[in-house]
Amino acid sequence: MPDSAAASFQLDARLEADTLSVGDLPLSRLLLMNDSRFPWLILVPRRAGVCELIDLSEADHAALSTEIRQVSGALRDLVPADKLNVAALGNMVPQLHVHVIARTRGDVAWPGPVWGVGRAEPYDAATAERLVAGLCARLGL
Amino acid sequence: MPDSAAASFQLDARLEADTLSVGDLPLSRLLLMNDSRFPWLILVPRRAGVCELIDLSEADHAALSTEIRQVSGALRDLVPADKLNVAALGNMVPQLHVHVIARTRGDVAWPGPVWGVGRAEPYDAATAERLVAGLCARLGL
Repeated sequence: MPDSAAASFQLDARLEADTLSVGDLPLSRLLLMNDSRFPWLILVPRRAGVCELIDLSEADHAALSTEIRQVSGALRDLVPADKLNVAALGNMVPQLHVHVIARTRGDVAWPGPVWGVGRAEPYDAATAERLVAGLCARLGL
Repeated sequence: MPDSAAASFQLDARLEADTLSVGDLPLSRLLLMNDSRFPWLILVPRRAGVCELIDLSEADHAALSTEIRQVSGALRDLVPADKLNVAALGNMVPQLHVHVIARTRGDVAWPGPVWGVGRAEPYDAATAERLVAGLCARLGL
């Protein structure tokens, strides 16, 4: 593992401001977007200076794919989901991050994408705590 | 390999209508979205009835990640790209498909996502042919 890259990793300030921390998977920091309209997780590989999936090493990309599977499964266990949206965009925040979002046919953005739609509606503390606890239990965090 | 799943795979009619075929990678059919506003590829794993990444076997998910890397690299070699957008959404077309899109700061949707923005502007035949030939050469198709 490139310890130096992990050591100098610092979460982007905007990602930090918009999310609640869930915990650290082997590669990625797991965040919950603080927007109760959509159950929306974000994985951020703890590798400094990486903006694109293809800038990850093959081993890191494989680890990220595994974590996407684990996180997707945990989310689908916890909340209703007619469809999962999994995406690495990064047009606004260049630090590599992967969205895993549980979409339902009744949500305010359906069937369009969620990015840029309206304003985030923060969780109340109890709901956020329950969701984070459920994720941690399923992911062994 | 689940031969029966591959054998009964049929490309979704909307994906077929909106794209030009590039060729078949070991797992995925590779398509070029017929929209000259964005260099936009779509990978469709040839597995019948699969809608979510996590519904792929682990081996198929790993193969898809490899193909995403190859296709992303080929696209970045061929066209200008300030950012790659990689996404499996599927809210409109449930058949699992992964978008790999080269974004530039001057494109009509920047910095938002491309989905649902305006109308597709089809390629002229020569440009499409050149792009498809470039992709095939880089991907060994």
